[in-house]
Amino acid sequence: MRFRLTPRETSFYDMFAASADNLVVGSKLLTELLGADPDARPEVAEKMRAAEHAGDESTHAIFSKLNQSFITPFDREDIYNLASSLDDVMDAMEEAVDLTVLYQVEELPPGMDRQVEVLVRAAELTSEAMPGLRSMDNLSEYWIEVNRLENEADRIHRKLLAHLFSGKYEAIEVLKLKEIVDALEEAADAFEHVANTVESIVVKES
Amino acid sequence: MRFRLTPRETSFYDMFAASADNLVVGSKLLTELLGADPDARPEVAEKMRAAEHAGDESTHAIFSKLNQSFITPFDREDIYNLASSLDDVMDAMEEAVDLTVLYQVEELPPGMDRQVEVLVRAAELTSEAMPGLRSMDNLSEYWIEVNRLENEADRIHRKLLAHLFSGKYEAIEVLKLKEIVDALEEAADAFEHVANTVESIVVKES
Amino acid sequence: MRFRLTPRETSFYDMFAASADNLVVGSKLLTELLGADPDARPEVAEKMRAAEHAGDESTHAIFSKLNQSFITPFDREDIYNLASSLDDVMDAMEEAVDLTVLYQVEELPPGMDRQVEVLVRAAELTSEAMPGLRSMDNLSEYWIEVNRLENEADRIHRKLLAHLFSGKYEAIEVLKLKEIVDALEEAADAFEHVANTVESIVVKES
Repeated sequence: MRFRLTPRETSFYDMFAASADNLVVGSKLLTELLGADPDARPEVAEKMRAAEHAGDESTHAIFSKLNQSFITPFDREDIYNLASSLDDVMDAMEEAVDLTVLYQVEELPPGMDRQVEVLVRAAELTSEAMPGLRSMDNLSEYWIEVNRLENEADRIHRKLLAHLFSGKYEAIEVLKLKEIVDALEEAADAFEHVANTVESIVVKES
Repeated sequence: MRFRLTPRETSFYDMFAASADNLVVGSKLLTELLGADPDARPEVAEKMRAAEHAGDESTHAIFSKLNQSFITPFDREDIYNLASSLDDVMDAMEEAVDLTVLYQVEELPPGMDRQVEVLVRAAELTSEAMPGLRSMDNLSEYWIEVNRLENEADRIHRKLLAHLFSGKYEAIEVLKLKEIVDALEEAADAFEHVANTVESIVVKES
Repeated sequence: MRFRLTPRETSFYDMFAASADNLVVGSKLLTELLGADPDARPEVAEKMRAAEHAGDESTHAIFSKLNQSFITPFDREDIYNLASSLDDVMDAMEEAVDLTVLYQVEELPPGMDRQVEVLVRAAELTSEAMPGLRSMDNLSEYWIEVNRLENEADRIHRKLLAHLFSGKYEAIEVLKLKEIVDALEEAADAFEHVANTVESIVVKES
């Protein structure tokens, strides 16, 4: 017999929910970046850095609790993987904003707004799905949709690269913008890893 | 006591074999791409997209069977990893073809044919190895050879980059071609992940 | 009951220590590269290739011992992951040196010395930590410090890219140098994977 819902275990769920909620904050800061003048971007980067710090703290709190727990709601390794992939999403989003400021980019490429839209949607779905880990119910729609979103992000990313390579940009400018849109593509991939880890947890427990 | 060869379990082997056979199809489409005029490439890309769809379906069939099986021929996680890495190979091969069309590349770089040769060989070896998962016999030659091929692919890839950076190409052209040869290098890496997963399965079961 | 310190098991620890010591050798060759004239670099690359070969042999010795052992000091998978991540560090360091020669780079970018300093420090810490796997004691300082170093490496890497993109370099030169500093960033990431694997081993065993 397994005890699933003791108070002790519950808080892993709360911690994953907090990590995922933080990704919603991060994804909205990406939207804010898109609307900001170059002068206003350092301020957005500052807020993103704060969100990334909050994310790091969530991640370490999960690792530290894992270190101290004898009984865990699912495999130790899956807890580790889930916390790590949530952290990867935030790192990639923060990188995109930081590079925009660091490289002193003037104009962000058209199409990047569509990348950000997909990330906002993936963040919302992930945040809504986390409480479902308690009951392990109704999560398949979430991971199917995030996988679909990752495919969409992939298509948008490739079109963006084709646009950057079309001859309208200086080579150095292409390199800068490519680093930024690549970071957003990495964020989309990391959302898929989160979804795949959730799928793998459910598969094992079912 | 473990029951290894019940009909129910057998079909995981068939599914992995089907996934690997599909990689042979994909690698031959890469050869077709090399021989095709730019005008004929979209048709090759169309066939590659179909092969990638078939691959996605194989992968999801494996995940879905895993979801429903109480007894599996080896660790659930290894089944998951093996299916995922086979899928990664196909994704990378499809990306190379898609980018060639999307970026409207005129001439593919010399040396790319050697990358493709290595991938064709790795696909054949992988396809021949999959049935061996049943008995777990004679697989070490397979994974040693795929690791060797990955080293070779790596050397070819680096020489290709040195050629692209030699000053004969415009910077934007370098960027386009680099994305394509990098995707092929990723496919070689993913073949190595498949081989490493097979090795890890055999190590655990032996 | 588990027997932890039988002679048979001990040698896994020795093997990991040997792999990590080899990374100290590799990281010092990076320092040698920085001080070498372009004419003297092929010789450094030759030594690095030898170190990488030694590393490959260590890795395969670990895999082969794993293949033959019934009892292992910790999870088979963790042994596999730890050996693989140590190998990844060496591969990335070797790549950086090889590309410098292959691309016939004249001048390495300022700031690359700071990347190398971080790698030298991470190698030393990793080498000092490996014997601690026996008792599983006092390893948290190691992994916290390597994670901090990886963050520092990340900041140095981003500043280096900003410098490369500042307009002082030709686009093709930027591409070459970027491949090299990216390889060093990969080495820093791989050191973090080693530390994370050690953390995950300690978490499971504690």
